[in-house]
Amino acid sequence: MPPRTLHLNAFLMNTGHHEASWRLPESDPYAHVELDHYVRLARAAERGTFDSLFLADGPHLWGSVAQRPSGALEPLTLLTALATATEHIGLIATASTSYNSPYNLARKFASLDIISGGRAGWNIVTTAGADAARNFGLDAEPAHAERYARAAEFLDVALKLWDSWEDDAIVADKASGVWGDDAKIHPPRHRGTYFQVEGALNVPRSPQGYPLLVQAGSSADGKAFAARYAEAVFTAQQTLADAQAFYADLKALTAAAGRDPGHIKVLPGIVPVLGSTEAEARANEQVLEDHIVHVHGVANLERLLNLPAGSLELDAPLPADLPSEDAVEGAKSRYTLVVELARRDRLTVRQLIGRLGGGRGHLTFAGTPEQVADAIETWFTQGAADGFNIMPAVLPSGLDAFVDHVVPILRARGLLRTEYPGRQTLRERYGLPRPVNQHTAALV
Amino acid sequence: MPPRTLHLNAFLMNTGHHEASWRLPESDPYAHVELDHYVRLARAAERGTFDSLFLADGPHLWGSVAQRPSGALEPLTLLTALATATEHIGLIATASTSYNSPYNLARKFASLDIISGGRAGWNIVTTAGADAARNFGLDAEPAHAERYARAAEFLDVALKLWDSWEDDAIVADKASGVWGDDAKIHPPRHRGTYFQVEGALNVPRSPQGYPLLVQAGSSADGKAFAARYAEAVFTAQQTLADAQAFYADLKALTAAAGRDPGHIKVLPGIVPVLGSTEAEARANEQVLEDHIVHVHGVANLERLLNLPAGSLELDAPLPADLPSEDAVEGAKSRYTLVVELARRDRLTVRQLIGRLGGGRGHLTFAGTPEQVADAIETWFTQGAADGFNIMPAVLPSGLDAFVDHVVPILRARGLLRTEYPGRQTLRERYGLPRPVNQHTAALV
Repeated sequence: MPPRTLHLNAFLMNTGHHEASWRLPESDPYAHVELDHYVRLARAAERGTFDSLFLADGPHLWGSVAQRPSGALEPLTLLTALATATEHIGLIATASTSYNSPYNLARKFASLDIISGGRAGWNIVTTAGADAARNFGLDAEPAHAERYARAAEFLDVALKLWDSWEDDAIVADKASGVWGDDAKIHPPRHRGTYFQVEGALNVPRSPQGYPLLVQAGSSADGKAFAARYAEAVFTAQQTLADAQAFYADLKALTAAAGRDPGHIKVLPGIVPVLGSTEAEARANEQVLEDHIVHVHGVANLERLLNLPAGSLELDAPLPADLPSEDAVEGAKSRYTLVVELARRDRLTVRQLIGRLGGGRGHLTFAGTPEQVADAIETWFTQGAADGFNIMPAVLPSGLDAFVDHVVPILRARGLLRTEYPGRQTLRERYGLPRPVNQHTAALV
Repeated sequence: MPPRTLHLNAFLMNTGHHEASWRLPESDPYAHVELDHYVRLARAAERGTFDSLFLADGPHLWGSVAQRPSGALEPLTLLTALATATEHIGLIATASTSYNSPYNLARKFASLDIISGGRAGWNIVTTAGADAARNFGLDAEPAHAERYARAAEFLDVALKLWDSWEDDAIVADKASGVWGDDAKIHPPRHRGTYFQVEGALNVPRSPQGYPLLVQAGSSADGKAFAARYAEAVFTAQQTLADAQAFYADLKALTAAAGRDPGHIKVLPGIVPVLGSTEAEARANEQVLEDHIVHVHGVANLERLLNLPAGSLELDAPLPADLPSEDAVEGAKSRYTLVVELARRDRLTVRQLIGRLGGGRGHLTFAGTPEQVADAIETWFTQGAADGFNIMPAVLPSGLDAFVDHVVPILRARGLLRTEYPGRQTLRERYGLPRPVNQHTAALV
């Protein structure tokens, strides 16, 4: 058995994960809608032999456009363009189970998987918030549990569609004029609570069978869903102890769901802010914090906490009487994380905004490359992570810095591949088996 | 004013438009799911200085997979990959107004338009047939008129979304920390019969404002829709007289709708089958016809004509008592065209299948390059066409043959550009103006 090595995912977002990153002299404020920007980032991640790259998404315009670069290229579209500009790296797109139909989405992922030679991944989200709901004919967001019930049925249908062609359904016998074997086509004929989908997918089974299934919700519903379906999980954890507890819990839930816990990879997010000394790293972090426009930060925080505008004071702590997570229908686990962070470290609203500016709840780590590598190694070897979701505060420079300065250290320690072992699918990259088609599974 | 020149669109489909093309020795029966096949075709069309290329689509698996290469890469996905492999050619994707939501589709087209530098086009279809309906929660296809009513509202919403950012909404003022101007963002707040869409699109306005709008339905509903919205129209016409009548009718309807009739380009389909002599061309056509598997042809025809299986006899004419187009809820104008073709030329079912094998109702023209160029010139100069939808019977060889042998003749006659005049948007390629944003139109 080869030594266990890190799985690294590059989480690409605009000019970086720090909300003020676009204001730096080096940043291109139009980068988020420029293909070249993302091609450059994808190639940097390949240079660092990352497993994959990832794009977050929500089908609505988020808040005020005054605040920062707004809007984004649709992830499946952008990743298709990146598929042609890269050779090895996995391509993980976020797409919503609440605001897509299974037939269309299953087909798009199958198409990307074919075009990329088996490098597609799907970050499955249920999409919190009324803003998205109102773009799709609803007046308010569906309840949290309802969204997850729909997501589970969506997955069942999508899996039926991806398995609706057996791998050897194509005969291609020119002499007899028989192209395919209709006996190896299996229409889902699904009639459920949320979906009715009759026919087979109109694209053959793709190299991976279906995209790598990724999930990022850490609420109770989210973890139950991940235990059942997810092969990789992105999560926000602020401390080693919290991350270890989450890791152990998710592996146990996965085993309890009848799956191999080794077949779910846990990747906490980390926002590295690098410097050649620790002081330089902290100074780099301070420059970013100094560019925050606090009026936006307050509005964002009020939104996250479901508070009316004007509820928060910049130099006061959070109100004491916030509702519990149970009463929240939006992003439950992120809500709790932010509230606990503020209370644990006794932060004012201003300080909390500064801490969130980098990673919106993900761990920001300012330090030297050695210090960042140490933290990664500790979490990886102490049962907190199978790898990391790397979220540079500033892009592209933060990704370049990670690849040029942290990656060599990880490689020297034997924690990361030094090169790609030839062409692989994304699932092979993560050390996961290709899914067997449900219609042939009994024969294997 | 420059001389009027042809607009050419390459209609790409699998191994060619002839249903038996995949059985030829030269054909790759997996080509329809191989990116390289389409890259090769796109580059051939660019070599021929075509305006655009086009992919048809329907969100369902069509009939038996025994018959011919089945399924297809999703068009927007495939065209995004082709955008990175080409420089000049327009990229027209088919997408359904019946089985998509406006927010998602508007965003995907805006993303493709940005990534391709303004080369996106949308072939707007309402999608006939129960097979598609049953993949999206319906038990039967919506009525023809209902589909078109939804399509019109879909377009209104999509146009509101594409105009929801003014062209100069981005300020990008790093010093003051203001990225965008919220006053130049215009949420649709649409509450209609089929759709409720509240918020602005989450991608800025694209190079073309929105994709070139293309339409292909030739029923009364289809023509009314085209007159209101379409900038290019694909149509199946069997004779010069029919094509002239359609052309004059559509231009008049467009003028009656208050639009410049020069701003709708009419492109009949043509299936060229070339030979160095007319006899060789006819022999090439015969080879294709000899590869037809008639049991499939009969089933397809019964399906098109809404007849129960077993209704048609191979060596008999069509039944005399077929219903009129008014009773058909599917592809109305194609139905009438096929019935009239069979009656006009007194064809048996076998002969009709042979005639349809090449273009499914589009004009198949077997001849020398000179003869094909003559036919194109006649239709173009005699008020039947602004250009053509080129549908090679066999791909890639038929497109190569057209580009190598017909295009030089058209260029020598001054009917076609000899090179691209630098970077242009698809709309510029078709000689059409960039749409003014509805929120700034009053100011212009």
